[in-house]
Amino acid sequence: MDVSLQILLVVAVLILLAKAVGGLCHKFSMPPVLGELLAGVILGPTLLNIWKFPWLAGSQAVAGNHAISLPAAVHVLAQIGVVVLMFLAGLETDTKLMKATAAPAFWAAAGGVVLPLAGGAALVHELGFGWAESVFIGTVLTATSVSITAQTLMNMNRLRSKAGTTILGAAVIDDVLGLIVLSLVIAVEFQRAPNAASMWSGTGWVAARVVIFGVLTFLFGPRLIRWAFRYARHFQGPHISVAVGLGIAFIFAFAAEAGGGMAAITGSYLAGLFMAASPARDEIVGDVRSMANAFFGPLFFCSVGLEMNGRNLGGQLNLFLVVMAIAVVGKVAGCGGAALAQGFSRRDSLVVGVGMIPRGEVGLITASIGWTAGVIGGDVYSVMVIVVLATTLISPVLLRFSLPADDRGELVESATVAANVAEGS
Amino acid sequence: MDVSLQILLVVAVLILLAKAVGGLCHKFSMPPVLGELLAGVILGPTLLNIWKFPWLAGSQAVAGNHAISLPAAVHVLAQIGVVVLMFLAGLETDTKLMKATAAPAFWAAAGGVVLPLAGGAALVHELGFGWAESVFIGTVLTATSVSITAQTLMNMNRLRSKAGTTILGAAVIDDVLGLIVLSLVIAVEFQRAPNAASMWSGTGWVAARVVIFGVLTFLFGPRLIRWAFRYARHFQGPHISVAVGLGIAFIFAFAAEAGGGMAAITGSYLAGLFMAASPARDEIVGDVRSMANAFFGPLFFCSVGLEMNGRNLGGQLNLFLVVMAIAVVGKVAGCGGAALAQGFSRRDSLVVGVGMIPRGEVGLITASIGWTAGVIGGDVYSVMVIVVLATTLISPVLLRFSLPADDRGELVESATVAANVAEGS
Repeated sequence: MDVSLQILLVVAVLILLAKAVGGLCHKFSMPPVLGELLAGVILGPTLLNIWKFPWLAGSQAVAGNHAISLPAAVHVLAQIGVVVLMFLAGLETDTKLMKATAAPAFWAAAGGVVLPLAGGAALVHELGFGWAESVFIGTVLTATSVSITAQTLMNMNRLRSKAGTTILGAAVIDDVLGLIVLSLVIAVEFQRAPNAASMWSGTGWVAARVVIFGVLTFLFGPRLIRWAFRYARHFQGPHISVAVGLGIAFIFAFAAEAGGGMAAITGSYLAGLFMAASPARDEIVGDVRSMANAFFGPLFFCSVGLEMNGRNLGGQLNLFLVVMAIAVVGKVAGCGGAALAQGFSRRDSLVVGVGMIPRGEVGLITASIGWTAGVIGGDVYSVMVIVVLATTLISPVLLRFSLPADDRGELVESATVAANVAEGS
Repeated sequence: MDVSLQILLVVAVLILLAKAVGGLCHKFSMPPVLGELLAGVILGPTLLNIWKFPWLAGSQAVAGNHAISLPAAVHVLAQIGVVVLMFLAGLETDTKLMKATAAPAFWAAAGGVVLPLAGGAALVHELGFGWAESVFIGTVLTATSVSITAQTLMNMNRLRSKAGTTILGAAVIDDVLGLIVLSLVIAVEFQRAPNAASMWSGTGWVAARVVIFGVLTFLFGPRLIRWAFRYARHFQGPHISVAVGLGIAFIFAFAAEAGGGMAAITGSYLAGLFMAASPARDEIVGDVRSMANAFFGPLFFCSVGLEMNGRNLGGQLNLFLVVMAIAVVGKVAGCGGAALAQGFSRRDSLVVGVGMIPRGEVGLITASIGWTAGVIGGDVYSVMVIVVLATTLISPVLLRFSLPADDRGELVESATVAANVAEGS
């Protein structure tokens, strides 16, 4: 059967199951995004393992001689999906609050890099692993991917809060810091740097790319966006603003990764953030919201669960528990502690710490770099993948219980209404 | 570079260029969909040939070991896109008018099958081709794919008219008739049928599948849709109705092709048609419209243009001109004549005939069946592919000039407003 036919069934099943389990979660006062992740776990290798179903397995040629497999097609859709999701998170950000929380966001990001790195390396070394492997595991734990946090906070109508804004800002800064740490670790551990000078020059190049991308983005990004929307207004046509907004978000995402070496989602988040401060925002946010909630969101969150294989834990339960504990405590103490030191309330600090727990594709990519280079073994790699995915699974639950009790009842009730109708709190 | 990164740039370029050229067309009072097709022709092998750009060419592994190439990923996105587009066309259909135009739609479909088949076979035979090849070329010309017509009529706010509704109904019926003709031709030409009895039994099986699919769909489709939306209302969550609507459309599309042997877009069109008669329509049509106009539409129409290679015409210009003439005249005379006989005005008959001109993926699939089986040669196959794509390119232009002069000015002015704001005329 042709992949472009099979994909229709798979997309339908992913969306419908995600929404059904998400709806169940909502009934039990849990964020729907948790259900969308669980739907993926149900379909994935942990339980049903749909890719092994005979009528879905195997790859076939489509479009002439171009090869494609069904899991790869779903993966590509999910990657487009998370870019749209973070674009939406940018559009939903309160830009004034973002400026006000720049300092706490920086310290939260710094705390969330230092603590998991140092704590991870030290504790894993205690378990009997060599320093190279231990430091690399710590490096994987420095990553943060807030797409799940952003969705959870949107579900609970709390994205435009002090804590929510701090998390989003810290995630961008964490992406920069994590990249510098990774390039340092690679330079040292992979012996690409025969001496200290070339190590620093390698790291300097990574930092330079980030700085160049950052300066260009912040200098020309808002202008480009203003120009594009003004230009688009000359042309008429249905939903042209949304199309232009999406196009710009995809270009920013591509440029962030291909140009700046950062995560693609950081680029699309920044595109959304710049548009959030422009008059175009109100024209497009409603349409982006429906695309994200009805199509791209369920696909992405489901596919995260799909890629998790709980059966791989096997003999490495000890390592899993230790690394998982560092993953959680490192961010809660590192990011939350920094927020507390910056004068945030205990609740808000806890929300910032918990919101930074999920590692996403950056953690997965880092882990696979270490595996490919032979720094970490295949069994450790499997554990790291499960840790990365497990952090995404628990964060909606932990966030749900971190939010003030008096807010919770009201928020759960108003979530649907807010998401469907209001333009934000 | 990873395909899931490259795809972000390609999607952005496709969407932005499609909207820009579409906007230009709109300025010159042409339907924007023509511009979206032309944007694809510009990027495709006829002009720029982007797939040969060094930094886009070549396939890379993503998601573990799953292979994917960039053109295949775009193809899959476009296939999902056309399913969403025809779902929207279903939602936008005036269901009362659809019932009223059932008879003319049937005769228009029948006329549009008989004339291109007989005329195509006779004239191509005149050019010196054998009967087997000539009849097969005629068979390719019986197909109709109205996604471009539907989009053009939506651009011009004319989908919910007598002619528009007749075209949509006739397209569904054409899909059934074309399938039966194809199975007959295959049975005869491929010598799969050693005698008349087995020929008719093979064709009977095709017809039986269509009938079974049709009966099940019309009997249980509307109930399934009512049930799904009622069930969805139990659960809450943002944009759950749109998600359910899309999920159902994808399942109908899959079932139509995998179960009924028909085109996937016929299935999603029927899903939209059933929902158009349900209270859920008003909840979801706005969101589906923005997805189709801002994301899936530009991607699909651009990719149609991308797949066209005008340079392949080469020495077969004679054949191209003859086949193209039959492709146009066959549908205009066959479908339009039938409509005229059913009491339609001359204008409306012309619109029906012109609206049925575009052949889409059904024509391409039929041509590739004949090529693979050796009934038509590689050069003839290339010509047929160009004819199929050329019919999609000229139909927005011809439709634009077929619409009453007094309507035109007003319609072009109101198109944007209507598409953005109104729920239909």
